[in-house]
Amino acid sequence: MNGHIKPVDLSRASRLVNHGPTVLVSARHGGVDNVMAVAWCCGLDFDPPKLTVVLDRIAHTRSLVEASGKFVVHVPNVAQLQLTEDLGTHSFYDDPGKLAAAGATLFDIPGHDLPFVEGCSAWLACELIREPHIEDAYDLFLGQVTEAWADDRVFRNGHWHFETAGPEWRSLHHVAGGHYYAIGEAMDAVRKPD
Amino acid sequence: MNGHIKPVDLSRASRLVNHGPTVLVSARHGGVDNVMAVAWCCGLDFDPPKLTVVLDRIAHTRSLVEASGKFVVHVPNVAQLQLTEDLGTHSFYDDPGKLAAAGATLFDIPGHDLPFVEGCSAWLACELIREPHIEDAYDLFLGQVTEAWADDRVFRNGHWHFETAGPEWRSLHHVAGGHYYAIGEAMDAVRKPD
Repeated sequence: MNGHIKPVDLSRASRLVNHGPTVLVSARHGGVDNVMAVAWCCGLDFDPPKLTVVLDRIAHTRSLVEASGKFVVHVPNVAQLQLTEDLGTHSFYDDPGKLAAAGATLFDIPGHDLPFVEGCSAWLACELIREPHIEDAYDLFLGQVTEAWADDRVFRNGHWHFETAGPEWRSLHHVAGGHYYAIGEAMDAVRKPD
Repeated sequence: MNGHIKPVDLSRASRLVNHGPTVLVSARHGGVDNVMAVAWCCGLDFDPPKLTVVLDRIAHTRSLVEASGKFVVHVPNVAQLQLTEDLGTHSFYDDPGKLAAAGATLFDIPGHDLPFVEGCSAWLACELIREPHIEDAYDLFLGQVTEAWADDRVFRNGHWHFETAGPEWRSLHHVAGGHYYAIGEAMDAVRKPD
């Protein structure tokens, strides 16, 4: 766990995904770790922070989430473009060596029996909020964020710093096929009184 | 309805929100139209396309969605930064003249009894998929996209063209307060065979 990985206050954790990045979802069960890319991840509540992820039933990682009741949401960055693509298009069911083939390196965070992917911009440890009907009907999973961390080279003091971090730190926003956009220019609106 | 607004094939409609933009949600009931900004909107399925939106119970627009069972998801752009901020921070409950104050102009699309906001990049007409438990417990609403349109100056042939459209067409990605990022640079990963 490198020295740039710093805790994020839970009241600010929703900001890690508020801008709609494509994420990685990892889980562990029965001695097996896996990671998949997920374009459909979304904030659900601020405090305590909750989020939603859509996990297709053909995804092996989904089976680990269902079995263990927990998962990690990661915010990958431009330096991980090909890693993200590979983790989203290859299945453990076809290739149990998928993580190594994609170049994913895992690390542990003490107190969490979960696999974390090195090199991301942020990590959100989540407990599955069980809602069997919507899991079955829509592949939609709800999670409560129990602890969050970010790399302080791109997120610190509760704010993203894409403007000043290098371009390799920008979040990825998947469109279709192998096509993505990086997050772009910062802009501020005037917040007017009610 | 200006001549640049073109239908989007439903099989491609999920691409309109796949990259995680902040959206506008509008609805109509009993002769009242309203629009709110929503950062938490997410794809849910491809074909037929479905999506999720989180609508806080303090939002007047939510009451119109609940009463009418339908809504429009809009993808606003940089030219609409202040409009988006104003629609997200002011409530019809406090100011029934909110739309005019924000400078929102509505238009109709034949066959849809719904209010559409001029100047956006894309519009998705949705029917509410009733799931009362998750609406009540999480403020989470599911919609099936019944028809979609985009402005062909920024989305055409099933693809976003942020790279070649002017910077005013970039989508908005809200972080917190009045702070947003525009979508940025396009990038392609190599899609490797299984």
